[in-house]
Amino acid sequence: MNLDTKQSLGISLGDPGGIGYEITLKALLALSKTVDLKTITLFGKESLLTHPQLEPLWNALPIKPKIVNCSEETQEVNLSTESATNGQIAIDAIQKAISFFKNGKISALTTAPINKKSLHLANSPYTGHTTLLQDAFEDKPVSMGFYTPTLKTVLATIHIPLSKVSSQLNRDLLETTLNNTLSFCELLGIEKPRIALAGLNPHAGEDGLFGQEEQRVLSPFVKAMQEKNHPIEGPFSPDTLYKRQLNGEFDMSISLYHDQGLIPIKLMGFGKAVNVTLGLPMIRTSPDHGTAFDIAYQDKANPNSMKSAIELALSLLKGTDKNE
Amino acid sequence: MNLDTKQSLGISLGDPGGIGYEITLKALLALSKTVDLKTITLFGKESLLTHPQLEPLWNALPIKPKIVNCSEETQEVNLSTESATNGQIAIDAIQKAISFFKNGKISALTTAPINKKSLHLANSPYTGHTTLLQDAFEDKPVSMGFYTPTLKTVLATIHIPLSKVSSQLNRDLLETTLNNTLSFCELLGIEKPRIALAGLNPHAGEDGLFGQEEQRVLSPFVKAMQEKNHPIEGPFSPDTLYKRQLNGEFDMSISLYHDQGLIPIKLMGFGKAVNVTLGLPMIRTSPDHGTAFDIAYQDKANPNSMKSAIELALSLLKGTDKNE
Repeated sequence: MNLDTKQSLGISLGDPGGIGYEITLKALLALSKTVDLKTITLFGKESLLTHPQLEPLWNALPIKPKIVNCSEETQEVNLSTESATNGQIAIDAIQKAISFFKNGKISALTTAPINKKSLHLANSPYTGHTTLLQDAFEDKPVSMGFYTPTLKTVLATIHIPLSKVSSQLNRDLLETTLNNTLSFCELLGIEKPRIALAGLNPHAGEDGLFGQEEQRVLSPFVKAMQEKNHPIEGPFSPDTLYKRQLNGEFDMSISLYHDQGLIPIKLMGFGKAVNVTLGLPMIRTSPDHGTAFDIAYQDKANPNSMKSAIELALSLLKGTDKNE
Repeated sequence: MNLDTKQSLGISLGDPGGIGYEITLKALLALSKTVDLKTITLFGKESLLTHPQLEPLWNALPIKPKIVNCSEETQEVNLSTESATNGQIAIDAIQKAISFFKNGKISALTTAPINKKSLHLANSPYTGHTTLLQDAFEDKPVSMGFYTPTLKTVLATIHIPLSKVSSQLNRDLLETTLNNTLSFCELLGIEKPRIALAGLNPHAGEDGLFGQEEQRVLSPFVKAMQEKNHPIEGPFSPDTLYKRQLNGEFDMSISLYHDQGLIPIKLMGFGKAVNVTLGLPMIRTSPDHGTAFDIAYQDKANPNSMKSAIELALSLLKGTDKNE
């Protein structure tokens, strides 16, 4: 195995109208003493690095990362707003990065934020990174995981109406989520993980009094998985589960819906939460925020979540090295 | 107005099999330097105060609160478990306290935890404090509020299945919740409150993409209330709302369902969260935990939430004095 290749990280710079370029350069500057920047490859519009707000950051980097230009010279970006051109450059950067991964030139990807409206204006069939990545990797059943130093959780459902969550919960979905959660634990080097499944209803249904999903779907699932020696417990009362996890009772939780998992992650992440796509052959991390057009190109963007996303990708790569 | 009466607090001691008696005495001991214990009236089984685990705590109180015995000498309690007798004593204590309030002998009530199973064994028609209190005060439309030093929230729905939340959200329920939220702000002395309404769906529906309730019910409600000059904003994306509230952007939030409000409250409350019943003529507070039969009568129970509940009731009483 070629270790240099194995440990090389790609970074797609996101919507060029947003804060992606700025937070990436700020994050790399902050990491330049601990990370060999030669092993990093950036994907985006190269000429933007001479923008007056970005150039000083680029020049300050003691060693320059590689850069793969993903935009024609003539493509004019629209700073601080969505546009078709921005959407196209953002998509091209991700797709180029994916082809680099498939050709063995990078081994993990951190993605800066893209914008749904720019994608739409660019006539892209994708609504975000996850659908694009699923398509690029033959519809593998992926899960969205979130990492903070204290809380780690994987979502069973993501961008669906709250009223539809109950009808989506079935054995297949839960097994996929558990498998992806086990992979996440393995990547993180957690050898004997303690995984907690959240309940859906108040007090996890209180013996069926406040909802039946725990008795009908969740408890039988946990029992079946325990019989296969999977390290999962629950379903637990959601209101105390994350506090218990914070206190060290569990290494990882499975959250059943978007806000059940993301309210605690955003409260405890202190702007450093990282989104991890699980179930792909490629490690992929991203910050937990959007393009923030309103503060782009004003030197106001906080790079902490992007820095954490890059650090986590590099750390997970080391994990895969150890396993081989 | 008789200030002595106005400021007198009742405390119902809860299920005698649980930790209620212990945490109350521990909390009063901790508060004995700052609170005039003569203004406190306890409701419960008086003879339990000679239990070997409780007697040293009672004896240590520099000034004794009043105690109203709510149990026959012959009623044997079942320590550390639920029972019909326990349920009956718990109910009698609350009902005696309510009659004291109605007769002007106490002006606020803090309730130690009771147990649903004990109530059921005692053939009580009530499932908890809220239903009992609603019944005692002619079915006033109450709301459940939660107080921590940093986060304060009021729930629009409480103990119902998650899949039923959407169908419960209507203008009447939201108006009742807002009115009770405004009362909560007034009691807390917040003069120009900034109240945030949570969305129901991921990203507050993202313009209808992940659910319609924001566009159909929540946004029109906020607009109508703003036209009446009510200080409410939203609906906001639930995953970042509580972080924004923590950062001081809002004084109070309205949460649409149990775990949306209680996940952040329990994470940030650090065992000191207080439950406040809003909409009653009487101030009523309680700790945010249950009877904890498993650790009862072992000197293991943490009185922090009970202490906070008593402190908050006393502080809210001072607020009502100021307003008169």
